Amino acid sequence: MQINGRPYRTIWPADDGESVEIIDQTLLPHRFETARLRTLEDAATAIVTMQVRGAPLIGATAAYGLWLALRNDATDTALEHAASVLMQTRPTAVNLRWALDDMLGHLRPLDPADRAARAFERAGEICDADVDICHSIGMHGLPLIEAAAAAKSGPVNILTHCNAGWIATVDWGTALAPIYMAHNKGIDVHVWVDETRPRNQGAALTAFELGAHGVPHTIVVDNAGGHLMQRGQVDLCITGTDRTTASGDVANKIGTYLKALAAHDNGVPFYVALPGPTIDWTLKDGMTIPIEERGAEEVTRLAGRTQDGGLVQVDIAAPGSPAANPAFDVTPARLVTGLITERGLCDASAEGLAALYPERAST
Amino acid sequence: MQINGRPYRTIWPADDGESVEIIDQTLLPHRFETARLRTLEDAATAIVTMQVRGAPLIGATAAYGLWLALRNDATDTALEHAASVLMQTRPTAVNLRWALDDMLGHLRPLDPADRAARAFERAGEICDADVDICHSIGMHGLPLIEAAAAAKSGPVNILTHCNAGWIATVDWGTALAPIYMAHNKGIDVHVWVDETRPRNQGAALTAFELGAHGVPHTIVVDNAGGHLMQRGQVDLCITGTDRTTASGDVANKIGTYLKALAAHDNGVPFYVALPGPTIDWTLKDGMTIPIEERGAEEVTRLAGRTQDGGLVQVDIAAPGSPAANPAFDVTPARLVTGLITERGLCDASAEGLAALYPERAST
Repeated sequence: MQINGRPYRTIWPADDGESVEIIDQTLLPHRFETARLRTLEDAATAIVTMQVRGAPLIGATAAYGLWLALRNDATDTALEHAASVLMQTRPTAVNLRWALDDMLGHLRPLDPADRAARAFERAGEICDADVDICHSIGMHGLPLIEAAAAAKSGPVNILTHCNAGWIATVDWGTALAPIYMAHNKGIDVHVWVDETRPRNQGAALTAFELGAHGVPHTIVVDNAGGHLMQRGQVDLCITGTDRTTASGDVANKIGTYLKALAAHDNGVPFYVALPGPTIDWTLKDGMTIPIEERGAEEVTRLAGRTQDGGLVQVDIAAPGSPAANPAFDVTPARLVTGLITERGLCDASAEGLAALYPERAST
Repeated sequence: MQINGRPYRTIWPADDGESVEIIDQTLLPHRFETARLRTLEDAATAIVTMQVRGAPLIGATAAYGLWLALRNDATDTALEHAASVLMQTRPTAVNLRWALDDMLGHLRPLDPADRAARAFERAGEICDADVDICHSIGMHGLPLIEAAAAAKSGPVNILTHCNAGWIATVDWGTALAPIYMAHNKGIDVHVWVDETRPRNQGAALTAFELGAHGVPHTIVVDNAGGHLMQRGQVDLCITGTDRTTASGDVANKIGTYLKALAAHDNGVPFYVALPGPTIDWTLKDGMTIPIEERGAEEVTRLAGRTQDGGLVQVDIAAPGSPAANPAFDVTPARLVTGLITERGLCDASAEGLAALYPERAST
């Protein structure tokens, strides 16, 4: 997607042939800067410090991190060490493990002298595959927006929660992919961007990327969506998901469930966009998904920029009051109008998913 | 209620017999300080700058403001001028107009020499009447918490939204009054405090007053309540309201509707506490209530304290992204389990309200 008229991905090989460039997402939305990764350590640090974030982008960064390591030392020992260092950066990230296993599978059989070149090539293939998946999600979601546009005059108002945009992937994003495609086609779209407390990925990241690409949008607090739907100001909702059960229950950023309830209560279609690999075929009931409890300081403390442009952390809550911080919630399939995948649209149900992924559903 | 073991109201006559003291709520929760009002101008400024906030407290402050004015000049001209100055401070505040009309009704017929003494007395009566109403709301809500406590082991978990506590009134509060009474009786209560974006009245004010009185509580972001209810961690919800229709629809701080939806979806009772005077008997349908749209900067900018104890404003959203800020939403009566009023508990329906307020319902 574009930033101020120039096309970007979130990660790309630098012109010098020796390094990789990324958008430093820790500075967003306050400053747009790119950073250069020259070593294994640079790549590991970028993941740990969340200069890169979002499952697909983390996997892509790890893949390029292996290349950077192998440029220096391509022995078996160095390869295994580098993979281990990268795996430790976010031990629970499924995409990270998948990308590293894929890379190791391609690199272990090779002569060490051939490994660096193949690692560079394979990392690029991993990036391209992610772009292809997101592009397909966009293509399958686009008709929903086209249909909404055809059914009304004025802009199609789409509400989204958290950040499931291109900067969480390599390009296009998941929930935002159909929106970018509609906008690029000239359809009049407007996005209600949920702030997404406590980490404010909506107000910070989704608003940043939509604004940078030129998509009309408005930030609202997470409390506002129900009211907007009651008053007919939302035509459809599209969110991403971290994990979808085989029965179509959707785990996503905390607060998604509340928006799905409001959509259901007001007859607003509620869609969830996802790449097939995030479906957990072992799970039938979303209520059994363990929910990560994160630190209280994410609720009580907040980063922002002062009038002179500095970045500071401020405490916003009553001193001494404890806070709880569940990071995700589960939206039951009954509240989800449909799932938008790289293979097409389906009902949020065991039958719907099985029809799209027969080879997985039968195992 | 208590602050660090000492009982307070939000406004009280000072010992010097010449002034009124208030809690300076603009500094909460970061600093607890009282302020002294010595003149009409002090009282007007306290309302305008929101050193005092909450409908009942604004009315009480205006009443004492008239007294402060009359101490200086009790002529007809001065009386009308003072009432006009105070009325201008928050022209849309219903309680403010009501308190000033009440005071003028009592003071206009009097000899100027007797007015200041009567104003002081009447302002105290207005305060006491508000305390009585809130106390009655608490007494009528208390059995709901007692019943919940009897039905389970461990604490009764109560979720509330925004600030409907004692610092928005003269004492006790509305939604929090039953909770203070339960806590004072030794019932094990724990309050989930919704942060309440964008102005954070929950994380700042509700958490402050519960903590100062010693009531166990935990701050959560507004996104979390649905998840907590799904997982059985909420026994009941109690919120306040700005305006209730004759049919039981409830206008309250933005986001209340989403919590009522989640409560309904999970079988959690959802109660709304209100003083009878906030019922709008002219309105049948809550969806016709106009919703105030406040400034975008309330969404994109936030006040907090830095590590060195200073207070600063920081921008938290993507630069240049617009924001919308509807301040209230409407919860349909069908989602409200019951209304807690100073006259007792009733269904959120025309019949329920008419049974408690027959003299109003028939007009």
